[in-house]
Amino acid sequence: MAKSPEEEHPEKAFGWAARDSSGILSPFKFSRRATGEKDIRFKVLYCGVCHSDLHMVKSEWEGASIYPLVPGHEIVGVATEVGSKVNKVKVGDKVGVGCLVGACHSCDDCNNDLEVYCSKMILTYSNIYHDGTITYGGYSDTMVADERYVFRFPENLPLDAGAPLLCAGITVYSPLKYYGLAEAGKHIGVVGLGGLGHVAVKFAKAFGAKVTVISTSPSKKDEALEHLGADSFLVSRDQEEMQAAQGTLDGIIDTISAMHSLLPLIGLLKTHGKLVMVGAPEKPLELPVFPLLIGRKMVAGSATGGMKETQEMLDFAAKHNITADVEVIPMEYVNTAFQRLAKGDVRYRFVIDIGNTLAATMP
Amino acid sequence: MAKSPEEEHPEKAFGWAARDSSGILSPFKFSRRATGEKDIRFKVLYCGVCHSDLHMVKSEWEGASIYPLVPGHEIVGVATEVGSKVNKVKVGDKVGVGCLVGACHSCDDCNNDLEVYCSKMILTYSNIYHDGTITYGGYSDTMVADERYVFRFPENLPLDAGAPLLCAGITVYSPLKYYGLAEAGKHIGVVGLGGLGHVAVKFAKAFGAKVTVISTSPSKKDEALEHLGADSFLVSRDQEEMQAAQGTLDGIIDTISAMHSLLPLIGLLKTHGKLVMVGAPEKPLELPVFPLLIGRKMVAGSATGGMKETQEMLDFAAKHNITADVEVIPMEYVNTAFQRLAKGDVRYRFVIDIGNTLAATMP
Repeated sequence: MAKSPEEEHPEKAFGWAARDSSGILSPFKFSRRATGEKDIRFKVLYCGVCHSDLHMVKSEWEGASIYPLVPGHEIVGVATEVGSKVNKVKVGDKVGVGCLVGACHSCDDCNNDLEVYCSKMILTYSNIYHDGTITYGGYSDTMVADERYVFRFPENLPLDAGAPLLCAGITVYSPLKYYGLAEAGKHIGVVGLGGLGHVAVKFAKAFGAKVTVISTSPSKKDEALEHLGADSFLVSRDQEEMQAAQGTLDGIIDTISAMHSLLPLIGLLKTHGKLVMVGAPEKPLELPVFPLLIGRKMVAGSATGGMKETQEMLDFAAKHNITADVEVIPMEYVNTAFQRLAKGDVRYRFVIDIGNTLAATMP
Repeated sequence: MAKSPEEEHPEKAFGWAARDSSGILSPFKFSRRATGEKDIRFKVLYCGVCHSDLHMVKSEWEGASIYPLVPGHEIVGVATEVGSKVNKVKVGDKVGVGCLVGACHSCDDCNNDLEVYCSKMILTYSNIYHDGTITYGGYSDTMVADERYVFRFPENLPLDAGAPLLCAGITVYSPLKYYGLAEAGKHIGVVGLGGLGHVAVKFAKAFGAKVTVISTSPSKKDEALEHLGADSFLVSRDQEEMQAAQGTLDGIIDTISAMHSLLPLIGLLKTHGKLVMVGAPEKPLELPVFPLLIGRKMVAGSATGGMKETQEMLDFAAKHNITADVEVIPMEYVNTAFQRLAKGDVRYRFVIDIGNTLAATMP
């Protein structure tokens, strides 16, 4: 008979979990493995709330959710134990874990530091680890992971506002780099000003790009221009505005996961421009092919990023003072936060103060 | 009052033109400009029949067709007069003209030898030239063009089978190069074995790639493997075969202009793979976004190619003995050829023997 989550590993752990697809989390006792020779164990202090946590909790991605499900893949804290073969960090160092905790380490993608594209990659939660047990995420008091998947968290980066960089940050940083858009003088569009979009604006500006935010909400204009430092703002429903901006962008980071039209966005691109999708609409979008041909344009995708690049992103963020704009919440607020997140009612990322508020919720 | 096509220029010309969208061509007297100081005039010997000629003749691309319409943009012949400032070729040299005869020469694309992406580029036929007159294509006895748009046709390349390289050839060569697929050891898919597809197989093989042809017609298997030298063949409707080939291709050149499903093709790509469209379906295709994200894949487009690259392609083709498989036809057969082309009944390109058969059709 399979062991219970509390008994399968030697180290006690406590967090909040979904037991079914109702969307509700509640306190959950489980366990984590002992610290292996290449593992880093850490006390979790903060964990960001990614929109994909909500999708997973509600089992909105077919077959991906395994219950009990402890979400959280923007996890930061302080190392409490390191294995005998760990060189990366020492006890007391600030560390972080993002979306992955494992991969095969032998395929081309792993060999090229692109673990996130490994067909055997293991997600930080709701996946099966090498030892056959379920992975549990960062809405919990402790975490343990192979050092390859643990990042050194730069000293000057605040833990709370820095946590979302581990998913939201790398998700926009990686495509800007890979698609040749992380260059001074480029003109970058960012579609959607949410958790991903607002960080995309900050990274693109730090790369020296001119940034245009494209949104359905005119209400976000001031925020985009004055607070986030974007250079211009387009209301996607304003055909005149959109028409005037045709052919002006080198690349677009499209963060929208709702159904939307690609044609106006492709039109905003210069010849050889790149429309990069980082949000995943549930159903196929309409792709007009002719505009791609005559402008040698592309519609491309990108997942988060490899481990090496994620560390590079954190170091870059620290150097350029890039963090997410966050609303720090106590653990017991998470179900309310999910409801607000579903309505887009957050500027721009909830981060759970695990260190100060989780223990009090233990039954 | 506007002058008639016969009177607007000093040099008499004769060809076949469509007068309306009926799809029928008939003999047509017109005129061409005198040879300017940077112009090359040549006697047309062969002209390929591209599927886009048929679309243009029938006015199937909204607003693009100007009648009378002399099609033809795979034009080869022998130089008969060169302007005083022309250095590229001398009288008697073999030359060719492809899809373009002009552009602005001052934008970024022109400055980067990418004239085909210039917003002011001028098509070889059914476009308005700098002097305000209609451009007429290669289904005609003579041609004159600015030397920038005239290619040196390599000595050892046969004029008849080489002509289609000027559109079909560059249309597949350019994306193979631009998207990093023209490398030994890559595994390239070619979707559709028609005018473009069969040349794509030849170029990809010459670059040292492994080539898989993907087609709806099992009947093309022997042709693909034995005659064209492809390494493997997939019937796109055979789900088992397609499933077994998932994740095996670095890139795909998709030549299909009919509506078709992109999902199975995206599935054939390895991570970071590129699906390049060179055919233009009339209506938008369905684009599944999630597979693009998790594999960092792209769906991209490409038009023909710049003038410098087209010359490079011709020289490469000559070196590697690459030509199109053609059926050479007399001028008066063109209307029948169009009917057969519409049914896909040609292996793989009609080429009109202008030099030997056009004059006899003059009324």
